[in-house]
Amino acid sequence: MKDIIQKLDLAEETAGRLEWLAEYGKDPEGGVSRLLYTKEWVEGQHALKEWMEAEGLEARFDEIGNLYGTLKGKNTDETVLTGSHVDTVKNGGRFDGAYGIIAGILALKYLKKHFGEPLRNIEVVSMAEEEGSRFPYSFWGSKNIVGLAKREDVEDIKDFDGVPFVEAMNNAGFGFRDESKGPREDLKAFVEVHVEQGSVLETEKIPVAVVNNIVGQRRYTVELIGEANHAGTTPMGYRKDAVFAASQMIHEIISMARETGDPLVTTVGKFEAQPNIVNVVPGKAIFTIDVRHTDKEAILSFTEKMTARMQEISKEHEVEMNIDLWMDEDPVPMDPKVVELIEKQCRENGLNYKVMHSGAGHDSQIFAPVVPTAMLFVPSLKGISHNPAEFTEPKDVAEGVKGLIGALYELGYK
Amino acid sequence: MKDIIQKLDLAEETAGRLEWLAEYGKDPEGGVSRLLYTKEWVEGQHALKEWMEAEGLEARFDEIGNLYGTLKGKNTDETVLTGSHVDTVKNGGRFDGAYGIIAGILALKYLKKHFGEPLRNIEVVSMAEEEGSRFPYSFWGSKNIVGLAKREDVEDIKDFDGVPFVEAMNNAGFGFRDESKGPREDLKAFVEVHVEQGSVLETEKIPVAVVNNIVGQRRYTVELIGEANHAGTTPMGYRKDAVFAASQMIHEIISMARETGDPLVTTVGKFEAQPNIVNVVPGKAIFTIDVRHTDKEAILSFTEKMTARMQEISKEHEVEMNIDLWMDEDPVPMDPKVVELIEKQCRENGLNYKVMHSGAGHDSQIFAPVVPTAMLFVPSLKGISHNPAEFTEPKDVAEGVKGLIGALYELGYK
Repeated sequence: MKDIIQKLDLAEETAGRLEWLAEYGKDPEGGVSRLLYTKEWVEGQHALKEWMEAEGLEARFDEIGNLYGTLKGKNTDETVLTGSHVDTVKNGGRFDGAYGIIAGILALKYLKKHFGEPLRNIEVVSMAEEEGSRFPYSFWGSKNIVGLAKREDVEDIKDFDGVPFVEAMNNAGFGFRDESKGPREDLKAFVEVHVEQGSVLETEKIPVAVVNNIVGQRRYTVELIGEANHAGTTPMGYRKDAVFAASQMIHEIISMARETGDPLVTTVGKFEAQPNIVNVVPGKAIFTIDVRHTDKEAILSFTEKMTARMQEISKEHEVEMNIDLWMDEDPVPMDPKVVELIEKQCRENGLNYKVMHSGAGHDSQIFAPVVPTAMLFVPSLKGISHNPAEFTEPKDVAEGVKGLIGALYELGYK
Repeated sequence: MKDIIQKLDLAEETAGRLEWLAEYGKDPEGGVSRLLYTKEWVEGQHALKEWMEAEGLEARFDEIGNLYGTLKGKNTDETVLTGSHVDTVKNGGRFDGAYGIIAGILALKYLKKHFGEPLRNIEVVSMAEEEGSRFPYSFWGSKNIVGLAKREDVEDIKDFDGVPFVEAMNNAGFGFRDESKGPREDLKAFVEVHVEQGSVLETEKIPVAVVNNIVGQRRYTVELIGEANHAGTTPMGYRKDAVFAASQMIHEIISMARETGDPLVTTVGKFEAQPNIVNVVPGKAIFTIDVRHTDKEAILSFTEKMTARMQEISKEHEVEMNIDLWMDEDPVPMDPKVVELIEKQCRENGLNYKVMHSGAGHDSQIFAPVVPTAMLFVPSLKGISHNPAEFTEPKDVAEGVKGLIGALYELGYK
């Protein structure tokens, strides 16, 4: 088995399939826009179905439009699932999501070719939606599979052009699942292959990672209220300068995060000054904080220290502070047994890999609480994602497919 | 003379005239918009002319629309000038500019009433424009009086509705001055009364200030270029976070300014992060710096230290820095003799006053290089200006008029 996987030459085929799928929703200026239930999305899903069938897989849609391709096993009560989401952000790249579907189909093709009928069903899924880019709802695909998505969640939402979710879904040929039925019980494991969307693997020159955790995150919006004043006529001692207070907070918060060390990350991504005029002492500053870590306790302890220090600074500066914690998601650990099993396969097949966490969210975090789940990453050029410049070398996307073949062999044939 | 000035009860009359002038350009929602050469402006200037005439002053417009009211002296070759600008910002207050004109007319009225014909002409001017709020040109009034304004400066400029400057001027009944003629040579002194537009006098509970200097200022735009990255997948050590670098710079710059002490003021009024998204490490930060001081050397030494430190910080953070110095104006000292003479009058007339600098620009800075000039300030409620909430207590505006009467007596009758 080791010899077979090592010798597979998948670079050209994988890269070619990525190009092929990117034709569905290709933007004239480069990049891909394949948003949920659009014409491009419908055509892409149907093209994937044809390809699945051409590879000898049993292909079918579920009610909401997730597309499955099955390699039937001896024991049809158990299914090992792989795949990712087919939707992109607006003007996104060719890899995010798409790569996990293509890797899945190719893995099933070569498993079938070299090892024949598996012990359990092995299935690849092209999930309807993950990005939340057309409608204000994310993970529509995976949340339907595990039974979390509800009709009422999307019944009243519309896209940026005012098109109702339900209308878009119906026009694409799909509808709601039967919520009286429970979620699928045949799923024994889920393995998702994805681009890293970060630059760790590229920097460390490692082609594959096994993901053992998806970070939890807290997001805050902080509003500081000082006093707007004339920049020329207000002596320094008379000021309540909201940007000055914010600058100290941001500098201390980010410095604290750096001292705390990996895997903690903290970002102040948005900043707004008011009235935002060159010759007015700013009376208001509004900024966001995004804190992530793989360990819930570590998030709690950091954010507690952080907000305590911010309270002190706001008092020193005599500015009023409002902190709004508007996102608080726990880390999602991957299944240690599946992680260990994929690691073992990587070692046996001679893949140069590392174990790392994911700093971004993925469909896997929806599966993990109900199905033993793990992920494989391949490098992202300069960490770029959600952008037409998204890129992974063909030799690296091939390594990811090999890692997946090994993992599915281990999960589906033994 | 002392007894006469001290006993004048001017509070009600001055406050009444401020209300009266504010009718010209009154905004429905409160505040005043009296922009250069608009209908409101024309009506305001003509109403002022009628009032001047009613007080027995010789009133006339110059070519561009500055309005003068003269109390003729024995020696008609010498003129002492007072006044300020009649234009407002969009939705401005009742005091900025207007108060200096009203104070001037009232001063001339009471000088004439109590002291008769002066030795020199004493003239009040309602200057056409100072704010630069309708057209991209400031100090049109004073720059014409001292011969600095040129036809070519305004020939191609338009207002926000596309109306050419020249068309607006002609429609208001005015045109260019004869540039072949030199500026007026009869001006022996200029004294401008104005609201402080800061909160020093209010805080120190002092009704009048004699201004001895108008600050110089430097304005910069700073651009920091780091690298935009995913907020979840980019470990802290891999980041070039432009907002983090900016936060350290701003905190250090403002702290340095506070340590340096009065009269230095430094403001970061505008701040922009890019791409300004909660979950993206910001690749760019753009902010402005406004530095003011009454001493040119002090501005140079502070800004040199400041930019050197910013260079260091940008290197430490590995972000590229572009600094654009786009305004560099020297301080304008007032005439020490005129300042001393006004101080003397304040003392003699029992006015509670202090000597201070102006942190904002005024018409006086245009006069000062060519005519011995000084200013009087009265308090601004909470330092508010350029806003409908602009306010000064009637008793304080009256004290300013008394200070001006004393100053003009000293300059015009002796």
